[in-house]
Formats: sequence, structure tokens, C-alpha cells
Amino acid sequence: MKFDIPKTPAVQVMGKSFRLAHVDPDDITPFVHSPDDKDEASPRLLQLRERLSQLQELLYAEQERDVLLIFQAMDTGGKDGAIKNLLTGVNPAGVRVTSFKAPSTGELSQDFLWRIHAQIPKRGHIGVFNRSHYEDVLITRVHGLIDEKTWKRRYEDINNFEELLTHNGTVVLKFFLHISKKEQADRLQARLDDPTKHWKFDPDDLKERKLWKAYQKAYEDAIRNCSPAHAPWFVVPADQKWARDLAITEIVVAALEAMNPQPPKADFDPKKIVIE
Amino acid sequence: MKFDIPKTPAVQVMGKSFRLAHVDPDDITPFVHSPDDKDEASPRLLQLRERLSQLQELLYAEQERDVLLIFQAMDTGGKDGAIKNLLTGVNPAGVRVTSFKAPSTGELSQDFLWRIHAQIPKRGHIGVFNRSHYEDVLITRVHGLIDEKTWKRRYEDINNFEELLTHNGTVVLKFFLHISKKEQADRLQARLDDPTKHWKFDPDDLKERKLWKAYQKAYEDAIRNCSPAHAPWFVVPADQKWARDLAITEIVVAALEAMNPQPPKADFDPKKIVIE
Repeated sequence: MKFDIPKTPAVQVMGKSFRLAHVDPDDITPFVHSPDDKDEASPRLLQLRERLSQLQELLYAEQERDVLLIFQAMDTGGKDGAIKNLLTGVNPAGVRVTSFKAPSTGELSQDFLWRIHAQIPKRGHIGVFNRSHYEDVLITRVHGLIDEKTWKRRYEDINNFEELLTHNGTVVLKFFLHISKKEQADRLQARLDDPTKHWKFDPDDLKERKLWKAYQKAYEDAIRNCSPAHAPWFVVPADQKWARDLAITEIVVAALEAMNPQPPKADFDPKKIVIE
Repeated sequence: MKFDIPKTPAVQVMGKSFRLAHVDPDDITPFVHSPDDKDEASPRLLQLRERLSQLQELLYAEQERDVLLIFQAMDTGGKDGAIKNLLTGVNPAGVRVTSFKAPSTGELSQDFLWRIHAQIPKRGHIGVFNRSHYEDVLITRVHGLIDEKTWKRRYEDINNFEELLTHNGTVVLKFFLHISKKEQADRLQARLDDPTKHWKFDPDDLKERKLWKAYQKAYEDAIRNCSPAHAPWFVVPADQKWARDLAITEIVVAALEAMNPQPPKADFDPKKIVIE
């Protein structure tokens, strides 16, 4: 779907020349941010949220199309926080968040898109994936579970799958929350320092952290090979949470505005109806 | 699950002597409500919402149990509004709302609990059903699609099914939003009077309205036959939306407080971990 991309620090990936290293995770241009602003409640964010809530209701009333938002990031990249922030105020009956974990034995005995396909949004809904089929060309590649031939074939499978969804009226938007290695260290340390956050800390995350470069390469490759116009990737600078959240909300609202959902016309004459 | 039921206008159904007609849909006792209060943002409701958000995070962290909230009501009874109100501020990644429509041909070729079972909440989640398996002893009965022998057998099936869920760590709470026939007329008329609400109006609702008495009887029967202590029904006076929403939120928070979810203890020593 074509829509006017609002000005945010996020970068829309256009083709195979894209380089992840060219995006600064700390970039907040063109946003301005005064130190007095409350990060989570800037006037612009509140305005966007209210509009998102209205647009979601219209999308639900229309019952013709739906939206799929895919979130990927390195550990601590802020997927949970970004999703919570984006959906604040949206009717929970119209959204569905699916978190994909390591596939089960049963899921592994199917093709890698099988369990994904089962979770795509229904008509009128906003579906949100916290991790997705992209893990199948990321963690699997970094850990040497698949070879180059396989991940390249999977790019093709992914592009075809996302095309099927768009053919059927789903608008697909993909967000990579881009943090720096230094920021990840700070966030992991913060989880260790706060006993109420210990449950969020997994010592295995440190092993993944050692593979940082390989992950960045795998992300860059996946992102630039799976960025057709109908299912764009946005690389969102995510070291600063407020800018990350504002950028995502701007983009989602702009996409929904362009969809311009309309409730169906009544097929009855309200004046002729008598309620007894 | 046993918990101290907070004082609200809602009535917990205890056994087969329950009579729906004895509950006044307009009752707001023991709540007090001054005309100055903003219906949707009373201090108590805001306090409960914040606590619900915390408890949901703890439930999610614990990953041991989950909660299933079932909402039933006559048309316009306020299921959508009550669910939206209850979940405002709760992390959308930890809740899942499922709206059950008329079953598909494929679903009808299975037992009536098959499609329900597929949607029960995962560990750590709050699942919300907008309509449920109770429709299979309500609309089907009122329209003569099943006979008395069948609906009585289904009460048994429902009780067994909900017991299975509770055996597995699911806390089941059921809410019937109880409105008066007069209130329904007002709400239907309001949908007719407002062109932006026409899409919510279905002329078939008027046919159902003519069956009001049969529905009240079917509800009363289902509710009193399926109210074991482990999966209670609450009949919530729902003519006044603010009281309905406050009552439901009070009850859900009290149940979660009694569950007292605890995050798992860290199985690592935070002091010994160095982030490189």
C-alpha cells in the first residue's frame, strides 16, 4: 500500500543497497524534544493515539481489510514497550498481539510459515507480531541451523507469503527497533540491578549478545531482501524510547489514514424502524 | 477459586434458587455516585485500573496460571463497552479478546466446545470471551434448535469443561450484564438516531427482542445450573454503565489479588554476571 510516510527518525528500507550501519540508533531528527516533555505523554502522541483509536473502530466497522504489524529487535530492543505504547487506548477487542517463541516439536514438523499463517489478523483487526517468521532467517542463520541456500529460499517464501496477505486486504508494516550495542548493555544491566526485573533477564541473552555482528548482518540481509513496496520495513532508531514510540505511532496512523476505512452504509431505513 | 467478593451491585449466583428477576438492572447499591463524577474516570476506577495493570504483569511474569473472563448479555447489554473499559491500561500483549459469532459449518461439525477450547488463554494471560459456549444453551434453545435433553446435557458438559480448565490453573469468572427491556429499547433507538452508529444496528436484533422473556428464562436456567464455586457467575446490573464497569473491575481485581501472582525467583546471581 502506498501512503505518505510521515517525517520521523525511522528509515524506510528501499532495496538492496540498504545498510543498517548507516542508521544511527540514537537519531531523533526531525523530532524535537524539550527536557520538560513527559516522554510518554507528549501532546502529539496523545493526539495520534486518539486518532488511532478512531481509525481502528472504523476499520472494525468496515470489515473489509486488516493490518499486520511485525516487530523485530535484538534483545532489550523494546518490542514489548513499543507494542504496549502503540496500543494504549485502542479497543483491545480489535487488536491481537501474538508473541512467537521457539517453535515446538510439532511446529517444527511443518513448514516455517505454518504457525505464522494461523495467527494472521481477521478482517477489521490490527494484528501485532512480537517476533515473527523473520526469526527463521535470523536466529537459525546465526546459529548455523540453516545454510545460505535455505535462507535465500526463505526470503522468497516470505515475500510470496506477505504478497498473499496483501492480495487479501491485509496491510503489512514491519518495524525493526534498532538499538546500539552500548544501549543493550545498559538495559541488561538495569534488569540485573532491579530485583523486580530479574524475571526478564535470561543469562542466555549474553550468549546472543556475543553474536551481535552476525545478527546485525542477518537483519540487514533479511530486511533488504524482503522490502517490497507492499510490505515495507521501517528501521526505527530505538535508543530513545520516546522517539521510537512516536515514530511508530506516526507511521501506523499515516497508513490507516491512507486506508481511509469506511463503515458500511445501512441497508435499512432508520426512520421506518419502530422499536416495540 | 475462593476470594473475598467486594461489595458491588453485582450478585454472585449461588445455586439453583437464583432468580434473574430478583436483580434490579438499575441497582447501584452500595456504590454512591455524585452527579459531578466523570463516569469513566472515577478515582476508584483509576486506582483499580492501575492495580489491574500491575497484577497482570505479575501474572505474566509468574507463567503458572491464567484468567478467563466470560461476558454474556442481551443485545446492547454492553459487552464491548465493558470489555474495553476493563482492559484500558492493561498491556495488550497479556490479554486476548475472542468474540464468538455464529459457528461456521466446519465448527458445527465438531462438538460445541471444540472451537471454545481452541481459544482459552495461555499461561500468564487474561483471556476474555465476548459471547461463549453459553450461546449453545441460549440462542439455540430459544430458537428451538435443541431440546431440553440436549441443553441439560450441555450444562453438564460446560461444568466439566470449566472444571478441567480450573484443574489446569485457569481462574474462570463469568459476567452476565443485566439490562432492562426498556434500557435496550433506548440503546437501540440511540443507534438508529446516530448515523455513525448505524453499522452497529442489525434489524434482526428486533426479532430477538421479541423473544426477551424466553431469553431471560434461558439465561436464568443456564446461570443457575452452571455456577459451581470454582467458576462463578456474577449478574451485573448494567443499565448504568459506570456502575457496571466499576463492579466488574472490582471483582476482577479482587480475584487477581487473591491469586497473588509472584514472579519466579532468579536462578542466577545478579552480582556475578558481567555484561561485556
